[in-house]
Amino acid sequence: MAERKGFANRVENQEISLIRRMSMLADEVPGTISLGQGIPPFELPVKEELAKAIMEVENINDYSLEPGMTELREEIARKLRRSRGIDVDPKTEVYVSAGAAGALNAAIMAMVDRGQEAIMLSPTYSPFILNVKFAEGIPRFAPLIEEEEWKPDISGLEKAVNDNTKVIILANPGNPTGTVYDEEVLREIGDIALRNGLFLIMDETYDFLTYDGKKHFSLASVPEFKNNLVTVLSSSKENAMTGLRIGYVYAQEDIINKMLIVHDLTVIAAPTPSQYGALFAMREPQKHVEEYVREYTRRREQICERLDGLGHIFEYQKPRGSYYVFARIKPETRSLLPYDDSFDFSKRLLYEAKVVTIPGLEFGPEEKGNEHIRFSFAHKEKAINDAFDRLEGYFNSLKIQS
Amino acid sequence: MAERKGFANRVENQEISLIRRMSMLADEVPGTISLGQGIPPFELPVKEELAKAIMEVENINDYSLEPGMTELREEIARKLRRSRGIDVDPKTEVYVSAGAAGALNAAIMAMVDRGQEAIMLSPTYSPFILNVKFAEGIPRFAPLIEEEEWKPDISGLEKAVNDNTKVIILANPGNPTGTVYDEEVLREIGDIALRNGLFLIMDETYDFLTYDGKKHFSLASVPEFKNNLVTVLSSSKENAMTGLRIGYVYAQEDIINKMLIVHDLTVIAAPTPSQYGALFAMREPQKHVEEYVREYTRRREQICERLDGLGHIFEYQKPRGSYYVFARIKPETRSLLPYDDSFDFSKRLLYEAKVVTIPGLEFGPEEKGNEHIRFSFAHKEKAINDAFDRLEGYFNSLKIQS
Repeated sequence: MAERKGFANRVENQEISLIRRMSMLADEVPGTISLGQGIPPFELPVKEELAKAIMEVENINDYSLEPGMTELREEIARKLRRSRGIDVDPKTEVYVSAGAAGALNAAIMAMVDRGQEAIMLSPTYSPFILNVKFAEGIPRFAPLIEEEEWKPDISGLEKAVNDNTKVIILANPGNPTGTVYDEEVLREIGDIALRNGLFLIMDETYDFLTYDGKKHFSLASVPEFKNNLVTVLSSSKENAMTGLRIGYVYAQEDIINKMLIVHDLTVIAAPTPSQYGALFAMREPQKHVEEYVREYTRRREQICERLDGLGHIFEYQKPRGSYYVFARIKPETRSLLPYDDSFDFSKRLLYEAKVVTIPGLEFGPEEKGNEHIRFSFAHKEKAINDAFDRLEGYFNSLKIQS
Repeated sequence: MAERKGFANRVENQEISLIRRMSMLADEVPGTISLGQGIPPFELPVKEELAKAIMEVENINDYSLEPGMTELREEIARKLRRSRGIDVDPKTEVYVSAGAAGALNAAIMAMVDRGQEAIMLSPTYSPFILNVKFAEGIPRFAPLIEEEEWKPDISGLEKAVNDNTKVIILANPGNPTGTVYDEEVLREIGDIALRNGLFLIMDETYDFLTYDGKKHFSLASVPEFKNNLVTVLSSSKENAMTGLRIGYVYAQEDIINKMLIVHDLTVIAAPTPSQYGALFAMREPQKHVEEYVREYTRRREQICERLDGLGHIFEYQKPRGSYYVFARIKPETRSLLPYDDSFDFSKRLLYEAKVVTIPGLEFGPEEKGNEHIRFSFAHKEKAINDAFDRLEGYFNSLKIQS
């Protein structure tokens, strides 16, 4: 008998994401309210159509083609034409992934070799970091400037590029910060990619969800970036179907083909019943999407008001898109509630106030990460109110003790 | 403007699998009959229950817990107790993957570092090879002996182990060969793993499907192998739901936790509606599974008879499990139909006879690979007959020409 050999470096050096860990910890605590993982608080918008398809579509239990059902890819092409004014070949320039997650993994695994670098704006959506580490690449962070509504520091970004850099990865609207990037800024970022021969991955999962009249701009609508650009989209948030695991990718054919190698190994094809669900939800009219945007707009006001009520604990930049607030824990909070790091802080809110949040540590380098936690407002009105009642009660009880 | 940098080595050195390529090629040819990818020719066995759940289960559109729904993991634990006589902790020793494909990818990525070796029995299920290459590992092949019903050469397997070996990967029943491994042989393979500190991945997707009274034996039922063993199972074939993308894994907790890192990045969680489908299908009674086994038993006889009718073209070992025949193209066929390699051979059958098969090249080293093609008999009786009518017609027309 020999001792069993170790695991591969790509998993040995990596922990499971704090988003998932918080969900798993919360599952062990009865009666929590979650402002953690962002799950749309709506029912499946196409349940009648999908239930009917399950009863009636003959091959709904079979694999689809690896890049996805032809009909769905055609619908995606039409949608991209509507939203971005571009002609897309549904046969070669689009594929259906297992959520945006599957697409991000496929893109990063197709681009980043061991020791190569990927640049992201920090704080950043954590799977960007985790996937780059999984590819044995090196995440580099260019800062977003908190005081300026999390605006990118373009010269900082440009300085982060070196010969070893392979890709810039960005979410627009941003998660966790809710940043909506201006066209000018995006073109500058795109130009940095072009000048340096870099891939550019744009995660546009929340493209439908902006506030205050901010318009979402997509580099996918600018032909000059096409050779370098991967646009990742998702049906999860726009159609309230996170659990169906349907994302999609727009890129030129050579990039799609390399991503399909990864897709084939990790999932073979996106789940067929879920593809039907996405197909039904993507067809016009898009009344459910309009309703969601109205609801999220209201809930953003609600969570901001409640955060204002905790103004002695948190401060924040009002998000311009997506459904997160990345709140800064005020330095003076530490005297009220001494905590080790933001994971510890989130765990205390979980165990002591029974409210789930995501530690800022999840989203970038430690220093900034320990000063923030992420709240999602993709939750029912009552859940947000009850959660903040609990948080207020908890912080008040600490004040009385101190 | 700089030239765009290249793709990562792990995809640059790899082609998309021939199984998927044949499906995609076939999609461009009208009126083909597929004996290629193995897709159960049955309708979804739980469509009423699933349609009802889609209408009635409140959170069916939301992410499940990352390792899968609690209820489904408990059902899986019960199933493993029934089938393998073991006590399984559904919280820590089981997770629900995006098909067996997702589980195989997660296991191999969690175990194999660049330059490390993985041993498989050849011919082997091709995703084993592709995943090892994707991990930048080195596939090593120990031969199955065709003349002895594809029995493994245990001393050959033992000789393939060296200091750099990390894992042995095996499907039982085998794909493409239909081998059902005896308990004695499996224990010998398990002992090789233990003696050398290797991981052992057993893909038992077809455990329910054996013929001629052959019993499936699982090393999962032997406690001494637990520290090294990953057992991969699937709802795809047993419950005729390949398109739902539900597999599952049994292993000890430390292995599961590393695989979940990969699972989280590639898919987050298995699709929730599909998990309900698997849950309903897994509950007793298992009448649909009994029906499938009866049907496949009949179709095995049917395809073997039809192959016998082409005895001047093909010879084969009768499969003892799964639903594939890995037929050898007789050397004299080459004078009738000169072909470059088995991919070329399969493409001729596709374009000239309009029948989809999978080139043997897909399943292992070239030399053997070019002598074989794989037929699936997971198809309707009429499809198998029509396909062989076409093949007979095609080979007859060649004979007349020559």
